[in-house]
Amino acid sequence: MPDATTAPRTSRVRSWWGWGWADAQPDDAECTAMGALLPGTLPRPLPVPRIADQHIGRPGAEPPRSLAHLVTADPEPRAAHAMGKAYRDVIRALRGQPGRIPDLVAHPTRDQDVADLLEWAGQHNVAVVPFGGGSSVTGGVEYRGDTHHAVMSLDLTAMDQVLEIDTDSRAARIQAGTFGPALEDQLRPHGLTLRHFPQSFEFSTLGGWLATRAGGHYATGRTHIDDFTQSLRVVTPAGTSASWRLPASGAGPSPDRLFLGSEGALGVITEAWVRLQERPRHRASASLAFTDFHAALQGVRAIAQSDLAPANCRLLDSGEAALAGASRDGSAVLVLGFESATAPVHAQLAQALDLARAHGGRGGESAPEAGAPADAAVGAWRSTFLRMPYLRDGLARMGAVVETFETATTWNRLPALIDAIRTEVGTAARDITGHPATINCRLTHVYPDGAAPYFTVLAAGRPGDEVAIWDHLKSVAGDVLHRHRATITHHHAVGRDHRPGYDRQRPEPFALALRAAKHALDPHGILNPGVLVD
Amino acid sequence: MPDATTAPRTSRVRSWWGWGWADAQPDDAECTAMGALLPGTLPRPLPVPRIADQHIGRPGAEPPRSLAHLVTADPEPRAAHAMGKAYRDVIRALRGQPGRIPDLVAHPTRDQDVADLLEWAGQHNVAVVPFGGGSSVTGGVEYRGDTHHAVMSLDLTAMDQVLEIDTDSRAARIQAGTFGPALEDQLRPHGLTLRHFPQSFEFSTLGGWLATRAGGHYATGRTHIDDFTQSLRVVTPAGTSASWRLPASGAGPSPDRLFLGSEGALGVITEAWVRLQERPRHRASASLAFTDFHAALQGVRAIAQSDLAPANCRLLDSGEAALAGASRDGSAVLVLGFESATAPVHAQLAQALDLARAHGGRGGESAPEAGAPADAAVGAWRSTFLRMPYLRDGLARMGAVVETFETATTWNRLPALIDAIRTEVGTAARDITGHPATINCRLTHVYPDGAAPYFTVLAAGRPGDEVAIWDHLKSVAGDVLHRHRATITHHHAVGRDHRPGYDRQRPEPFALALRAAKHALDPHGILNPGVLVD
Repeated sequence: MPDATTAPRTSRVRSWWGWGWADAQPDDAECTAMGALLPGTLPRPLPVPRIADQHIGRPGAEPPRSLAHLVTADPEPRAAHAMGKAYRDVIRALRGQPGRIPDLVAHPTRDQDVADLLEWAGQHNVAVVPFGGGSSVTGGVEYRGDTHHAVMSLDLTAMDQVLEIDTDSRAARIQAGTFGPALEDQLRPHGLTLRHFPQSFEFSTLGGWLATRAGGHYATGRTHIDDFTQSLRVVTPAGTSASWRLPASGAGPSPDRLFLGSEGALGVITEAWVRLQERPRHRASASLAFTDFHAALQGVRAIAQSDLAPANCRLLDSGEAALAGASRDGSAVLVLGFESATAPVHAQLAQALDLARAHGGRGGESAPEAGAPADAAVGAWRSTFLRMPYLRDGLARMGAVVETFETATTWNRLPALIDAIRTEVGTAARDITGHPATINCRLTHVYPDGAAPYFTVLAAGRPGDEVAIWDHLKSVAGDVLHRHRATITHHHAVGRDHRPGYDRQRPEPFALALRAAKHALDPHGILNPGVLVD
Repeated sequence: MPDATTAPRTSRVRSWWGWGWADAQPDDAECTAMGALLPGTLPRPLPVPRIADQHIGRPGAEPPRSLAHLVTADPEPRAAHAMGKAYRDVIRALRGQPGRIPDLVAHPTRDQDVADLLEWAGQHNVAVVPFGGGSSVTGGVEYRGDTHHAVMSLDLTAMDQVLEIDTDSRAARIQAGTFGPALEDQLRPHGLTLRHFPQSFEFSTLGGWLATRAGGHYATGRTHIDDFTQSLRVVTPAGTSASWRLPASGAGPSPDRLFLGSEGALGVITEAWVRLQERPRHRASASLAFTDFHAALQGVRAIAQSDLAPANCRLLDSGEAALAGASRDGSAVLVLGFESATAPVHAQLAQALDLARAHGGRGGESAPEAGAPADAAVGAWRSTFLRMPYLRDGLARMGAVVETFETATTWNRLPALIDAIRTEVGTAARDITGHPATINCRLTHVYPDGAAPYFTVLAAGRPGDEVAIWDHLKSVAGDVLHRHRATITHHHAVGRDHRPGYDRQRPEPFALALRAAKHALDPHGILNPGVLVD
């Protein structure tokens, strides 16, 4: 979201247990009001958990004097590095049962620090969990094993600089621990931008995006951070891997593609050269309403299979549109946006609107050229998009269960998949909670050959059993995805929560190859144990 | 090239030693005429080599009765599977010193055949060299080792069917042994096309494209077959890897990206789901002349960094332009082409022409919308593009040395790289042959962050020493590429000829991981030994 890049940054405090800024969390009154809408929730919100109430023991390992300046065993940073920000993590914190709190938190400032820390950890059987912004929603930054002597969270955020900019090639060398806003701040004076704006933009880092193959700003074309990666620098226990800066190559399997998505299991990404762009000067956006969601899917397919390549092409079903305030009459809503640094984009928007109207889309007056947000629906959707994770935490405090998950599949399978998720996850939620569940769907990214639907599940009814309910719904959803051959994740990564689905999805010979690669690079098995391979 | 897809196909005979169709090779008179232009060549062409004159011994291994129907030890197929079609291969055949002739040639018709052949080969230490069209120009399909009991060429071309088409998702399941024209023939009735047109289109297969990360039709955007790959089926000695059909995924490192570019060293690609397109209905193309090649580079960069995404954006230096008949006054020539199935593309062409003119481009009247070939320069370039490999063989018969190699680098490094190749390879060629060499350059693919230059080196002067001269020039070129951190190959693959450059380029930890993956999938080390890893 462009808006996020210009959000004011202050010395605000991050929530240790929930999403984002502590002061942006809904207050008790807001939580109570949300809960009142959902039968079966608590009468009043669970209290905000305090670090002082956590049981944080003495660390199980102590680094040598030479590394002591990089490592802390203080309770606050340890608690804040215990988990990511999945619903499962938030509710565990609220229920006083957070994940394993790491023994140590390290803050390396350069590659050699990372290499030294890995060497020490390998010698002492200390699990190392790389940590960027900690916004994982799949259990990617915690330790769930029991075979290591101790656990060290490796926080990269002291490595937060744009080190070099090549304006000719429009690329920059950037340290992995750089948060989204800081990254854009350092690029802005050069008239350049990465334009990678995941929902977590404010609270996630370049290294995290790379390690998890994050999805970003663009709904078509270059949807993942992979597409913006020119080269990677990765510190592994077996040495540092530095690929060359290349616009493209055909020299064997791509080295970068092995580390993209490796989730800290093969090495620690410390920096990357990434591809930049000029800031867009031309924009046009509009939204259309559809009575029939399945007809809207066909309209979106027509746009995705054209040459138009909208930057934004997000289809909200009626529930999602209502939640975002983008529709009040039960319509599905398609939000379209075009942008360019080169030339006006009105013609492309007009062509896309024609395609959408041919499939039943109504409305779609385009917004003024330079104007963003465009129309009311577009603006409503944008602000809801950024506010949603905070509201999820408020609902968690009311004992509701909220799950968001995403996938991707080909067009021929998409309608049946969406129907199956609604039916089967809906039934499972009603059966386990005793209350009807809300299941909303939107398409976040679209391709000529398929699309990425994103589901939000909202259920309530058995406060106290939230984790078990969430695990059950996750399992049911994973089964549906598997049966429909839809990926276990389009851009949320595998982490630990998606391991069962991932293990069924990946080809077994690839798993053999990945395990062998892991063993070659991480012979002591200390890197983010449990992620991707055992 | 669109033209190639509609070329008539007959029962013409493939040359066993040279490029393409035997009857398309230049005749003796044409060879002599070409040689007369180059001081230091032979007075008359080397004779076309005959299989009957080759020393083809008894095979060193015999398959079991159960596989006998798939395998031949006849001299003709064995000779035709001994090498690829690099200059080095052609001249070795002409000089009566072809590469090691395989003991056996197998023609599997289904996956189980491939698995059975691999199992037998593993048990008997028989090297297996996967073979599609055999058009490798980097020594990718021959055996140069001495540690295997026998060598079997695994020819996939009996697996040549489009098995399934999903018109909703615009994708098809296609067997790996399908040649380019046969593939397009089977898609055409459905109104769809893969639009992957490497120079080798007529003589190469889908499996070969995938295994070597071939470069295709598009000069921007989706330049490699990688981008059109939805899923892969790969038979390995450790089992068959079948990835899911997904438009995109974020579930761990991409399984397909490990096998794309694996050059037969990790497994045998037997089929793939590939992404298709509608045939373009709108086209526009034009060419511009530039006095200053370096100014032209800047013009191309401006186009590559715009949103225009031309399908064709090929910059020919003055030598290349003269050779193609696209220019007679020493100008460099930029060939631009746009195409779309959705909407007219004149506006985009006009914008691209404006950008080129701002950097000194002259001319560029656009051709009629539906017209292809567009203008004279565009047409001349296209026909030269397809004729060039045959002319190379004619020059080889005159004892000239011809080498083409390609690379990619970022814009900031590109001008110095091109100058260094001209100077250093030119000097090396003059020193070793005693005659000045011709070095031409064109850009084949362009990216926002860099471009892929393609060099043609033409030298003559020491007939009889062609292989040594070629090896020397290849080594000098590889050194220049390494020093400038330009990839050893953008789309010709690594094979055996590029191994020294590849070994210096890839990060050592990645090499560790790749070796481990190879050992896990190919424990007996029988798959294309010597390619990528030892």
